[in-house]
Amino acid sequence: MASQSVLTPQAEDFPRWYQDVIAKAEMADNGPVRGTMVIRPYGYAIWERMQAEIDARIKEAGAQNAYFPLFIPESYFHREAEHVEGFSPELAVVTHAGGEELAEPVVVRPTSETVIGEFMAKWIQSYRDLPLLLNQWANVVRWELRPRLFLRSSEFLWQEGHTAHATYDDAAAYAKRIHLEVYNDFLVNVLAAPTYLGIKPASERFAGALNTMTAEGIMRDGKALQMATSHELGQNFAKAFDIYYQSEAGQAELCFTTSWGASTRLVGGLVMMHGDDSGLVVPPRLAPIQVVVLAVRDEPAVNEACDRVAAQLKVQGIRVHVDRGRGSFGRRITDWEIKGVPLRVEVGPRDLAQGLVTMVRRDDGAKVTLDLDGVAPRALTALEEIQRDLYEGATRRLHDATVDVTTVDEALEAAQSGFARISWSAVGETGEAKLKAEAVTVRCLQRHDGSIPVSDDEPDLMCIVAKSY
Amino acid sequence: MASQSVLTPQAEDFPRWYQDVIAKAEMADNGPVRGTMVIRPYGYAIWERMQAEIDARIKEAGAQNAYFPLFIPESYFHREAEHVEGFSPELAVVTHAGGEELAEPVVVRPTSETVIGEFMAKWIQSYRDLPLLLNQWANVVRWELRPRLFLRSSEFLWQEGHTAHATYDDAAAYAKRIHLEVYNDFLVNVLAAPTYLGIKPASERFAGALNTMTAEGIMRDGKALQMATSHELGQNFAKAFDIYYQSEAGQAELCFTTSWGASTRLVGGLVMMHGDDSGLVVPPRLAPIQVVVLAVRDEPAVNEACDRVAAQLKVQGIRVHVDRGRGSFGRRITDWEIKGVPLRVEVGPRDLAQGLVTMVRRDDGAKVTLDLDGVAPRALTALEEIQRDLYEGATRRLHDATVDVTTVDEALEAAQSGFARISWSAVGETGEAKLKAEAVTVRCLQRHDGSIPVSDDEPDLMCIVAKSY
Repeated sequence: MASQSVLTPQAEDFPRWYQDVIAKAEMADNGPVRGTMVIRPYGYAIWERMQAEIDARIKEAGAQNAYFPLFIPESYFHREAEHVEGFSPELAVVTHAGGEELAEPVVVRPTSETVIGEFMAKWIQSYRDLPLLLNQWANVVRWELRPRLFLRSSEFLWQEGHTAHATYDDAAAYAKRIHLEVYNDFLVNVLAAPTYLGIKPASERFAGALNTMTAEGIMRDGKALQMATSHELGQNFAKAFDIYYQSEAGQAELCFTTSWGASTRLVGGLVMMHGDDSGLVVPPRLAPIQVVVLAVRDEPAVNEACDRVAAQLKVQGIRVHVDRGRGSFGRRITDWEIKGVPLRVEVGPRDLAQGLVTMVRRDDGAKVTLDLDGVAPRALTALEEIQRDLYEGATRRLHDATVDVTTVDEALEAAQSGFARISWSAVGETGEAKLKAEAVTVRCLQRHDGSIPVSDDEPDLMCIVAKSY
Repeated sequence: MASQSVLTPQAEDFPRWYQDVIAKAEMADNGPVRGTMVIRPYGYAIWERMQAEIDARIKEAGAQNAYFPLFIPESYFHREAEHVEGFSPELAVVTHAGGEELAEPVVVRPTSETVIGEFMAKWIQSYRDLPLLLNQWANVVRWELRPRLFLRSSEFLWQEGHTAHATYDDAAAYAKRIHLEVYNDFLVNVLAAPTYLGIKPASERFAGALNTMTAEGIMRDGKALQMATSHELGQNFAKAFDIYYQSEAGQAELCFTTSWGASTRLVGGLVMMHGDDSGLVVPPRLAPIQVVVLAVRDEPAVNEACDRVAAQLKVQGIRVHVDRGRGSFGRRITDWEIKGVPLRVEVGPRDLAQGLVTMVRRDDGAKVTLDLDGVAPRALTALEEIQRDLYEGATRRLHDATVDVTTVDEALEAAQSGFARISWSAVGETGEAKLKAEAVTVRCLQRHDGSIPVSDDEPDLMCIVAKSY
């Protein structure tokens, strides 16, 4: 990069680098209550872009948005045995409201399977009401003892999809559709994030699920991050909440349900997957600002030229921001690099005299000199190239960091700096325990060709093993 | 309307009519915890449209979205005296989390002035950081003893804007800009909702505000609903949270802050302002579905023709839904009328043989027969006409229901069925008390020409008096 970094280098201290980027890019702050987070405008603009892209895909998959209450009666959690066990240690509980002690304490939702199950039971009468495909965008609370901004916070923002189906097959197919057409499509085509797709081993499944699909991305320090999960809940929640439908034959039948979610954790994933020593690197299709036009100096002719370039870009549908020349030029370049804006166009008085401007790529620092009125077509091409290059770079890192091994000890060694791929039969429950003792986990099970198995009963599965966030 | 209503007529029992519409249009249900609400897909789709329209206007006014924590330390509320007094009876308090009792209880936000004040103090250094213009979309909790879906719920969704300025004038001008260019523009041009604009008398101000602007709409039963409010907070919160900036002259100066909000209450306002005995009537610019294309019968040729009409409408940017002919045609018409979709296009086999379809307006029931391939231009025109007619109708009702009076007794009488306009000097604090004893309030103070006064100190103000939600 052209400019001196003001961040801790990744190689020196990765967690500190992460904190530096979050702070200096003005993405988030710690909230006053332990583990809560203030998402600042730039961080929130990135989340809004993620929301828009994921929401469009969810709607395309036929699900409708709705909103369920923040407060859930404590008793609901006790109806599904694994669910209460999984979530009890993380719950925040309201005991007083309206100046009085409540007769029954209410839980601040950690996830909404229980309350949505209650209403599905009410809304579903016959097979004609199925599938029922719902999604909500909401905040949820899971008390965190070791919080980290975006990655693990006591309150986070997410979408949670909840669906009910007449058959096991239909539920399984829909969960898989969401996993591939919503999450993986978003990850590959917007976030430029290659991942390993697969299912969780039983020990890592969502509380109450039969099966949990995941997408495991690799961060710049070689650790894994779970980017999104989709759960087949079988009939567990349907049984607990009496979600029945009348079949065409007139029989009362239990539904099969699914749930699936992606959260503000993705913002943390973005930082750690693409970021470098100069800060964040935002893929163009995601970027709230795709091009920043910088005036080298605050002069009327320069500012006018900036506006002219910006207008040209806007017409092409490019998201553009003009930075008029207040304050040090070098400092402003550094700030925009930290924010990871894919392209910057520098407009200075000297170049301008010749009708020229300079365009610089954030990812590789490549510079080109362009005619003032010819920026837009070159910017469009460059944005597409950056998008592609980021995906290819991340894919290369994922593959380079994955080592094929045959023993748990070798997996443990490989997981010190990246991912290990090993036969699931060579690991098993004993192997999992040995890995966990070293803070290494089985991130997912997959088939040899990388596709998602139907269940962990399939023979001859491979697994991906890594340290993780 | 063409079809028999399945709702309680408004004239018979307005609150019951409201409940019927909310239930039968599948907009919302009561949640399991007292006063909470489940917003169903159709109700939420309306809210999403409101959000999109309001959000675009907020961004146009220069504010940026951010997100602040749900949980606020209880102590924050004690820093601003009026604020704690105003909100204490409504707070929900978390006392336990992560399996332990908390050292300091945390409040579930009823509004975020306090926590945002804390961060403004941190982020604002110099006059160059001002104005700081923030907004957030969030859920808030105010414990309600007499909840009603959308109108008063213990949890509701809203946007809350929070800004900090260097001077009183700049803060006042920005609050007014938001009130007119965001709220009033949305109300007039999207919701087709004429209102009385003005400021609240001291007794009705937001807790901690110097001045509260409001927009008071009239419901079909003659009661008022506050559609949005914008508050000048003066230096009250800046003092309580140490929000200082360094002036150009190098002096530490206190900021002036504002806040402003609109909530899911607007959905209740939509129902009660435009609804009739056949259900909801949604203004076209707001409607999530602008045109429903109904197959009279479930036959391939009819369904194909429906798709052809729908495709034609989509190309024109119209939001369209196709209802294939399953179930009774009459019943489906009734259901779409209850949902208030502005236009329906009926496609039946007999008309189709002649290449014709029928288009029906929801608001006045007017029918036209159209050529199958000529629906789009007529639909576009009809949608604009409906939008205009709804605004004109609501404006007429507002004016017809407003009576000019000179004494508090006359105001009381007028407020039994509508609004009274009376000189503020003829009411005063004694008059306010007399009105309140009869559940009537001063909704707002305005100038003779209907414009918004700077403060309640202005001479010769008028006030609007009514019963309200």
